[in-house]
Amino acid sequence: MPENFHIDSPAALRKLPVSSLPGLCEELRSFLIDHVASNGGHFSSSLGVVELTVALHYVFNTPEDKLIWDVGHQAYPHKLLTGRKGRFYTNRLRGGISGFPSREESEYDAFGTGHSSTSVSAILGMACAARYRGDHTRQHIAVIGDGAMTAGMAFEALNNAGYEQPDMLVILNDNNMSIDANTGALQDYLTALTTGRYYNALKSHVRTLLSYPGQPDKWPAEVLGKLRNAVKGGLLRYSNLFEALNIRYFGPVDGHDLDKLVHVLEKLKHIPGPKLLHCVTTKGKGFAPAMTDQAKWHAPKTFDKSTGATLEKTSAVTFQSVFGRTLMELARKNPGIMAITPAMLSGSALTTMKKEMPERVFDVGITEQHAVTFAAGLAADGLLPFCTIYSTFLQRAYDQVIHDVALQKLHVVFCIDRAGVVGQDGPTHHGAFDISFLRCVPGITGASPMDLEDFRDLLFTAQADRESGPWAIRYPRGAGGPAPASSRFKKLVIGKGRKLRPGKDIAVLSLGPVGLSVVDACAGLEGELDVAHYDLRFFKPLDETLLHEVFRRFSAVITIEDGCLAGGMGSAVLEFMAEHGYHAVVKRLGLPDTFAEQGTQQELHALYGYDKKAIVAAVRQLAARTKDLKKVADIL
Amino acid sequence: MPENFHIDSPAALRKLPVSSLPGLCEELRSFLIDHVASNGGHFSSSLGVVELTVALHYVFNTPEDKLIWDVGHQAYPHKLLTGRKGRFYTNRLRGGISGFPSREESEYDAFGTGHSSTSVSAILGMACAARYRGDHTRQHIAVIGDGAMTAGMAFEALNNAGYEQPDMLVILNDNNMSIDANTGALQDYLTALTTGRYYNALKSHVRTLLSYPGQPDKWPAEVLGKLRNAVKGGLLRYSNLFEALNIRYFGPVDGHDLDKLVHVLEKLKHIPGPKLLHCVTTKGKGFAPAMTDQAKWHAPKTFDKSTGATLEKTSAVTFQSVFGRTLMELARKNPGIMAITPAMLSGSALTTMKKEMPERVFDVGITEQHAVTFAAGLAADGLLPFCTIYSTFLQRAYDQVIHDVALQKLHVVFCIDRAGVVGQDGPTHHGAFDISFLRCVPGITGASPMDLEDFRDLLFTAQADRESGPWAIRYPRGAGGPAPASSRFKKLVIGKGRKLRPGKDIAVLSLGPVGLSVVDACAGLEGELDVAHYDLRFFKPLDETLLHEVFRRFSAVITIEDGCLAGGMGSAVLEFMAEHGYHAVVKRLGLPDTFAEQGTQQELHALYGYDKKAIVAAVRQLAARTKDLKKVADIL
Repeated sequence: MPENFHIDSPAALRKLPVSSLPGLCEELRSFLIDHVASNGGHFSSSLGVVELTVALHYVFNTPEDKLIWDVGHQAYPHKLLTGRKGRFYTNRLRGGISGFPSREESEYDAFGTGHSSTSVSAILGMACAARYRGDHTRQHIAVIGDGAMTAGMAFEALNNAGYEQPDMLVILNDNNMSIDANTGALQDYLTALTTGRYYNALKSHVRTLLSYPGQPDKWPAEVLGKLRNAVKGGLLRYSNLFEALNIRYFGPVDGHDLDKLVHVLEKLKHIPGPKLLHCVTTKGKGFAPAMTDQAKWHAPKTFDKSTGATLEKTSAVTFQSVFGRTLMELARKNPGIMAITPAMLSGSALTTMKKEMPERVFDVGITEQHAVTFAAGLAADGLLPFCTIYSTFLQRAYDQVIHDVALQKLHVVFCIDRAGVVGQDGPTHHGAFDISFLRCVPGITGASPMDLEDFRDLLFTAQADRESGPWAIRYPRGAGGPAPASSRFKKLVIGKGRKLRPGKDIAVLSLGPVGLSVVDACAGLEGELDVAHYDLRFFKPLDETLLHEVFRRFSAVITIEDGCLAGGMGSAVLEFMAEHGYHAVVKRLGLPDTFAEQGTQQELHALYGYDKKAIVAAVRQLAARTKDLKKVADIL
Repeated sequence: MPENFHIDSPAALRKLPVSSLPGLCEELRSFLIDHVASNGGHFSSSLGVVELTVALHYVFNTPEDKLIWDVGHQAYPHKLLTGRKGRFYTNRLRGGISGFPSREESEYDAFGTGHSSTSVSAILGMACAARYRGDHTRQHIAVIGDGAMTAGMAFEALNNAGYEQPDMLVILNDNNMSIDANTGALQDYLTALTTGRYYNALKSHVRTLLSYPGQPDKWPAEVLGKLRNAVKGGLLRYSNLFEALNIRYFGPVDGHDLDKLVHVLEKLKHIPGPKLLHCVTTKGKGFAPAMTDQAKWHAPKTFDKSTGATLEKTSAVTFQSVFGRTLMELARKNPGIMAITPAMLSGSALTTMKKEMPERVFDVGITEQHAVTFAAGLAADGLLPFCTIYSTFLQRAYDQVIHDVALQKLHVVFCIDRAGVVGQDGPTHHGAFDISFLRCVPGITGASPMDLEDFRDLLFTAQADRESGPWAIRYPRGAGGPAPASSRFKKLVIGKGRKLRPGKDIAVLSLGPVGLSVVDACAGLEGELDVAHYDLRFFKPLDETLLHEVFRRFSAVITIEDGCLAGGMGSAVLEFMAEHGYHAVVKRLGLPDTFAEQGTQQELHALYGYDKKAIVAAVRQLAARTKDLKKVADIL
């Protein structure tokens, strides 16, 4: 039974003796387990850094000293210690505190995070700012995982830090995992460092030298000791990846040993220049099930904390599961198909395919840029890569989509997961912009399925025509209406939408699964208004035949999409109108020009005016307005 | 006087004895000097890789073996050897061959390049494709510069290659330069490798061990020899950055020594797995002035090849020079201003500022992602970074602009150079998409100056209001009309455009320097049509007052921008119309939905219909159409 410390500020924490810290950690951990068990959320990353968080706030003078949590899904203990324990029950809820660090939320959050591998760049900026101002006392700390370290921008930042040489500390939180097990050579290297394989290899090498025949390996203990130190302090330094970049390397240390952590961090305070502390932690530490299956427990739903059994069961079929199954089904028949994911193997439902055909699924690590150009390389050599990336992370590879894929007309299929609002992960993770940033790219085919069956057909079609160039198929997180009715595939016509419902008062043009809300809305308006519903299916190229029909027949049109309005699908429809000289009253529904907040997808659809209710209201309003306009016209 | 080999295919090259290769190199070099002296183009990078190019095509069986040139501005000798000597006079000209490798142009160009650091990802894709097909004989080679190696995506690819372990060879072309001198810790490390500093440090360390008092450093030569080899072969391997990533490191070799190159490459053919050959070359090799001032000779205009004197003088004041001078002027008064460039110090005209205030100009290397988040770090700490990035390269940092800057409302000023068509660098380098991909980002202020004076005022305004959040100021490559008339600054109102010319027949809305062509066009139409001209100045937020005036007074409107039409400024104007219920005939001028080709900026403005002549024609056409419409309306 942990003592209750009532610690909710680093200042209070710093008054405790070191000996109390393990107790505080136990309390924090138990709070976290209780909280996530009843609310869900990011879990095992936070459990892994409880001691590290306590030690950092204990040793450093936050918030004056700057502390940045890379990615930020491990910052729950940090939030609890910095005045947000009382509001923690609102974590990730609409209007509540964010699941990630946020500058708006707290002065202790020196830099907002969410996407990976930004912390080293940001802390380097702050360290250079301090140096410019002549401030040599403030400390600068970034905590970054070994997964995040695989992303190129972390390397860019280290390389620049090694050149600039300001005072800063990078803590490499090495837990062997991204959300899934890490891949990449760096992982091997870090393991070698932490297991001593590296050090031992060097040591044995020197031992070999010394045992040259004719020479004694019977040197006095004193000499051997000096040798050992020389090897450890000297040669190992030369041999280190980080030292090669002019970053001093320290560690590895056990990230759950508070005494050691406090001691080492205190020492590092006084060492100038850029430093890296290699800290080994266990993801899920302190909750047995999470330590056993770390991928599953990355961000669980509610669970029974005594058994670890999941409480929330979702029976709905998701876009993700259909994606994973369908791609595998297609790959069995089409030997050219390869799957590429930047560290989202389970999130993108590729785990089963990876088991069945390991040589055809590439988890390339948190490397969106590389993922896309690697796919381009496969495609340039005649294979057919399906590159699946979350919408918000595809922003990381925008140039590669344009320059390496589209410009070369390569047949890469981008499966854009988590398109539209994603829910509780909030503003850092919504897939709001992809239609706008993709539809200006020449030669891309851009589509979004309304339902799961349509999704299967789009995936099928995308691989069927080898001359079709790059594809982008966007689909949201989670459920997608009824399970696919057919196990057969239908080849769709590229750039063709469909009329789902005839009507004469108003036309609604939808793209993607929001079309299901339009179906409901139309049903709700039955008898009151006669609404035509068209599913565009493709945002690029637009179905011009369909649009000609719409604008010849309707003077009032609503467009609806789960994405930002600026430059989105509705905007493309306006461009079509201008080009062809159509005039109509057009109301566009979608995300307004602000960063969408956090909340469930349903809440956000309602908030931003494109759930069923909002669609009904928009239809009514537009119908009334059109009627008025007609009346005016009749009078004139 | 070099012998003429008439070699224009690798097959022919391979029939020569090794002893002829230096003569061929001399011939190639002399051709290059002649060509660039009379035509301009990328120069010193190509001069630096003449021997390497010859050796690669000599040893490897191109085009069956896959060879990728990173960035590709060094691929002139490659083009000359692969059948494009006869067409080389069309290099970079409209309709001619590209200045970069291009899959469409030649089967010898295994992968199109232009932007840096893509080659390792692409070659890894091809190597994995070969392995998947069971092809273990084909060779895969990527040639990448030390500058390009600083970009994160190269690291991502190496890390993935070290994990995948397919057969591939990365040639690190180490010439100490990007376009400007390289920065970054990696550069230091590579220099240490090539100068033997690294090796010597290790060696001396071991020597110290061996000379421990009481022990002889009088071991027999044989022992010392073995020791030396052990150090070289063993310890050095452990100590290598690339080896840490599981890439076998070879070198350094002299990249101008043909015998050595041919010998080493032959050997490497037979070593499996991923390998890196560190090859040291001199940028500008063989042309003395280019070896002395490598930045200047990266891509010169025409010059006198005997003296190196530039022939083409441009007296016009450029946006770049005004940028460099103005920023320095502002920085002298505003101590918060910092400048950040990802390896475009001279291209962005920051060289002088770097000299005057070195601690306030950061050349962070070819690291657009890091550049933006580093700027965000500075801004989060109260400084005012001006982050200058070419439009086409900002595509590399799109996520960072959204996630690290805009979402946090940080006051970073993005100075987007080379916006619009850039000219002869062609499709890989046009700044076509920035308006579309930026205007959907909430909270960004997006502007483009029509002329140099306006540019100065925009730069001034961007730093004047500390609460204004992120800015994006886009401006084209090169000349910008008359030099700024005033040395004083005018604070502009954010989101306000201006009426440049009243009129009543038609309104033209322009953004950026294409407005100067509109001014000319209006003057040319004087007496014939009364055209109103508005300079929007801001594409975000739009000047709604101005637009209300326009759409209340005009039923025919032309928008014009130097960027893609899909989602661009004209599209934003259509969104405004839809939102406010305006109906008008709108003709949008700008780049169509294809990748714009290469040619001078003037040629491309004409080709894509927005030079003065095209504007005049568009105005006439729209006026005629509107007249017809009016007639019809009058008859009805």
